[in-house]
Parts: sequence; C-alpha cells; structure tokens
Amino acid sequence: MLQPVILSGGSGTRLWPLSREHYPKQLLCFAGERTLLQETALRAGLSAEEVAAPLIVCNEEHRFLVAEQLRELGTAPAGIILEPAGRNTAPALTLAALAIAQQDGDPVMLVMPADHVVRDAQAFAAAVAEAVTLAEAGYLVTFGIVPAGPETGYGYIKVGGPLATGGAARELAAFVEKPDLATAQGYVASGDYLWNSGMFFFLASRILEAIDQHLPGLGVELQRYDEAARAGTEAESIKATYAQLPAVSIDHGIMEKVSAVSVVPGSFEWSDLGSWTSAWELSPRDGHGNVLPEDGIAADASGNYVSAPEGKLVVLVGVHDLVVVDAGDALLVVPKNRAQEVRVVVASLRDRDDARR
Amino acid sequence: MLQPVILSGGSGTRLWPLSREHYPKQLLCFAGERTLLQETALRAGLSAEEVAAPLIVCNEEHRFLVAEQLRELGTAPAGIILEPAGRNTAPALTLAALAIAQQDGDPVMLVMPADHVVRDAQAFAAAVAEAVTLAEAGYLVTFGIVPAGPETGYGYIKVGGPLATGGAARELAAFVEKPDLATAQGYVASGDYLWNSGMFFFLASRILEAIDQHLPGLGVELQRYDEAARAGTEAESIKATYAQLPAVSIDHGIMEKVSAVSVVPGSFEWSDLGSWTSAWELSPRDGHGNVLPEDGIAADASGNYVSAPEGKLVVLVGVHDLVVVDAGDALLVVPKNRAQEVRVVVASLRDRDDARR
Repeated sequence: MLQPVILSGGSGTRLWPLSREHYPKQLLCFAGERTLLQETALRAGLSAEEVAAPLIVCNEEHRFLVAEQLRELGTAPAGIILEPAGRNTAPALTLAALAIAQQDGDPVMLVMPADHVVRDAQAFAAAVAEAVTLAEAGYLVTFGIVPAGPETGYGYIKVGGPLATGGAARELAAFVEKPDLATAQGYVASGDYLWNSGMFFFLASRILEAIDQHLPGLGVELQRYDEAARAGTEAESIKATYAQLPAVSIDHGIMEKVSAVSVVPGSFEWSDLGSWTSAWELSPRDGHGNVLPEDGIAADASGNYVSAPEGKLVVLVGVHDLVVVDAGDALLVVPKNRAQEVRVVVASLRDRDDARR
Repeated sequence: MLQPVILSGGSGTRLWPLSREHYPKQLLCFAGERTLLQETALRAGLSAEEVAAPLIVCNEEHRFLVAEQLRELGTAPAGIILEPAGRNTAPALTLAALAIAQQDGDPVMLVMPADHVVRDAQAFAAAVAEAVTLAEAGYLVTFGIVPAGPETGYGYIKVGGPLATGGAARELAAFVEKPDLATAQGYVASGDYLWNSGMFFFLASRILEAIDQHLPGLGVELQRYDEAARAGTEAESIKATYAQLPAVSIDHGIMEKVSAVSVVPGSFEWSDLGSWTSAWELSPRDGHGNVLPEDGIAADASGNYVSAPEGKLVVLVGVHDLVVVDAGDALLVVPKNRAQEVRVVVASLRDRDDARR
C-alpha cells in the first residue's frame, strides 16, 4: 500500500500577485482547470495500483480551502493535518508519519509537495514503482530529476555509485544548494547531478526511526503535539511551541544523515513552479513566445508572460521578455529574468502591513 | 468682448485605454482634479477681462458629458453645438462662427482645442492680449509656441518678418507637418519655427468672409445645416451630408490662403497631450523619473509612466521607460518611445468591433 502525503505548506511569494499569503500558489490554477493541489492529489492517486487516499499537511489557515478543493475532485482525504506555522518539511513530515503510525500496517509513504507540476504520468508511475520497491526494502528514497538544463532556481542532488540492488537508482552523495550558472553548467555536464525534487518514499516505521535518531527533540515535541491534537486539546501554548521548532528540511535534517538512502532518477518533465518564468515555460505560447490571455494583442512583442482577469483586454506593443500579472487589486511588471526578485518586494509589503501582499 | 470657442472633437486614440471613442481624452483628468475640457474652459474665462461664456463644439454623442462637466465648473456655456461627425476643425469653426453671427456685435473669437494643457496663466493672458489687439485690427491670428525642444509629435509654423504693427507678432510663412528628428532640430536651431498650437483669434465677421472666399462649398452646406439645427429640423439626411463634408483644417483650409495672418509667439508651457509620453512629461515624477499611482512600488525601475484604478497596487521591478496603463477593462504596456503606435492597435480593435476600444 502506498500512502501519499501531500505537503501543502509555503506561500509561493515569488508568484505574487496571484499567489497570496492567504491564498498560496498550490491552491491556484496555472495551466488548465485544476489547482496544483488537485493535480498533485490526482497524480498521487494514479501513480500505483494500490494507493490510499492522500493525507494532507497544511497551514491551519488553509484547512477549508484544502478540504473544498479535494471535495471538488470527489476525493475524501485520509486526513488533513494542520500546522500552526510553517517550519519547513521535517516537522510536517513527522506529523504525517505519527498519524500513519496509528493505523494498521506499515505503508510506504510517498511525500510530495502540493505545488509541483509533473508532465508524463507514465514516466512518473515507472519511477514511483522503482522507488516503492526500494522503500519496501528499507531504503529512504528520493527522486532526482534528470536536468533539462543548467537551472539555477533548483537545488541539486549529487549522486554516488549504483545500488547493489541494481536498477537505475543511485546512492546519495549530497544535497547541494541552488548553484550559480557556471556551477549549474558544470553539474549538468558531469552527469552526476540531478534536480532535487523534494519527493520522498519510505516506510512509515523507517522514517520514524530515522527521526528518533537524528531529530530526537523534534520527535518528542511533535509526539506531544500529535497526542494533544488527537485528543482535541491542542492549546495555544502547544501551538506556540510548534512555532518555536527549528525550521528543518527533510533533506538536511534526515536524508543526509542516514546511510541507506537511494536516489531514483526521474526523466519526466517537472517544475516546482518557482517563479513566473516557470509559469511561462509551462504555458502554451503563441508563435512569438508570448503567453497571452484570450483576445490579448501582442504587436512586435515576444517572449512575454501575461496573466489578467477574465475579460480584460491586454495590449503589448514593442515589449519583450516581460512578466505582466494583473491580479485585480495588484499589478506586477518585471523582466522574466528578474522574476525571482518579486519575493523581495512581497517581503517589503509585509513590512508595511499591506493587505495586498 | 472675447468669445471663446472650444473645439471638443477628436477621440484621442493615442491615449487608449483611458481615452475611448465614447469617452475621449478631453473629458478625462490627467493631472489634477479637473478634466482637460474643464481646464480649457477655466483658462478661457481667465484669459482676458471681458470674456463671454464659452461656446462648445462637440460630437453629438458627448453632449451630456460636456454639459455635465461645465455644470460642475459652475459655468453655463454660451451654447453647445453638435457635430454629427468629426470633419476636422474648419467645419466645426464654421458652425461656431455662424452661431456667433446671429448675436449682436462682432466679438473676437478665441478658438481653442479642448484637449490641450497650458501652464503659466499669466504668460498665456499676455499672449492673448496681443492676439486680441491684432484680431480687432482685422488679422487672422494664430499662436505659435516657442519650442521647448525638437519635438517630432507637433506640426510647426514657419514665421516670416515682423508685422508693421510692431510687437512680438510675426507674419505667417507656412504651416509645416510633423518633422523627423533631424528636421525638427534644424527648425529649432533656425529660430524661425514655432510649434503649431491650433489656437486662433479673429473677428467673427472676418473669419466668415474668409470661409466664404476660400471654402465656399463648406460655407453654403453649413449655413443650411445651421438653419436646420436652429429650427430643430436637422434630419438624418442633413447629418449624412455633414459626414460627407471634406475633413479640412483651419490651418490649411483658411489660414494659409489669407494674406492678413499673424503669428503671436507664446512662451508658456504647452502640450497637446498627444501620447502617453506627453502625459509622463506633464506629471509629477519620483526621483527616478517614475510617474506612479499612490502606494506604487518601483524597484530598480526608472522613467516609467503608470496609471491604474484607485486603490490598485502597482509593482514595477527592473523595468525602464515603459508606459503601463490599466483602465480596469483593458491594460496597455508599451515603451515610452513607441507610445505613438497605440493608435494603430486601437484601429485594429475597431476592425474587430471591440467594445473596449
């Protein structure tokens, strides 16, 4: 049995002004009619033959939006676990593993962020099959995506030698942070680096052991939080404790410290939709590389990404490689190659306590 | 007595998407709280000691908007003359002159477009005083604006020698069309060229004589139209006739053909607000040359002109010298130096019968 765990944290500030603190990117549609969360839940459900309903971990502020989006899919989640605050992925994972440990059996957990885009369901399912086999054999498994190019917006995984078990999987050498362009080019040329997808597979029992061993404080705190939540007595004091937990990732907090880790290479099209540039890459474009709303006009304009409310007429004349996002109450204009800087502006909105952040 | 005649024709398509066919630029506010039409009416009223209420010539579609805007000023117009269609300035002027000829006396007409911006009321009034004196002496007078630079968006007036009457006024040598940059630079360097302001002064009797002499067909047609309008019997057939009139300007249709023409130089700040670039030039800017709505953010961005609905947050990152105009149902992005091309796009909207034109 495969138990999907969807991590729906994060606020996606680099996709402002569509993605908002109160309505983050995983709850929005970018291409097509389903939100990223809905696409993720569907992908999980189709990734293997025996799949449980997904368990969702989200900020408590988003609980009703998350429940409604799953209802629209016709999927009842196995549960919705509420985080009082975002503390990176390790605490969220721990809460999910503790909940799963209450159930019968010892399923393989498939941990996946809610805000990623994956194309080619068949290649995805093939990689999942290999990862599940390794997880059942006791490995902690992560997906590394075969790089489509020297992307500087992603972290990378350095892989080691092949596993003794055979197959495409490799040993983990290291998780490395987002590189500069020259470094990224070197990584891609070497063939030893994959994009860090943030997707993991392991038996619930194995990851709880690893947490006990490598993040013992976190394990104890969250056991207490989990019991209180289960008893319906999660007081403000416990929520406050949660917000004080170290913000630690699954990669650095657990995976890097464990010996039996394997990396399954995935060659499917994947994106973490980390900026408007990614949205442009993933969207259908006209003959001049423009992503335009219906009826939009681009005169001597190329390579632009435009999003606007339905029915709004957008006219571009003589501009190139711009991001123009009109969210109704806010409008952003930035060159595509500087789209990452949007997060800095959103931080400044927080400083001035702007409701439009 | 000075009789202002405000020509409120034109649709200002180069200021799309704020300026619309049904709501053209002269009826909009650009800087400050009054519309261009209101500013023009106020300027006329303050330009001399004895000034009649203005006579307005506008498209019949705008009659109620024009009346309302004058009511807001507390000014009752001397009249609102309706044009069934825009046929350039000579027919509009002729209708106004025919109406004035019905009154007692023979006032000096001050003919002014509704959509110009003039700063420095004192310098304006001084130029008006000289022009009125010349008009009373029988001259047809036009204002030429001392160029602030080699503007290629304006027509020019080539001046001849000084008038025998003395003063700053000059003889008219020729009206010349919008030049290219090199030509404009030559004009400015020569000192013999002024910007063509489109403002005129003449006795009503003198201009009617000139029309009879140089545009006799127009005079006869419009006499008939004027009588029908006065009798309240302007049938559709007469309106259709009006739309068939030649579109002819005061400059080329009359002024160029008359000998007793003088040009009064005006050294006040003036703009015909002919594009978003002019709007940028006339608006208050931040330290980096940006015109931004309230609360707007410009991060490493300079020289931009932004207009957006009240309360909308606009964020520019890393863009320079752009025009960004959000009119609610339409959004335009164009480099400032290509702002003139907007009219071409608006024409294409007409072709597709787009209500947002």
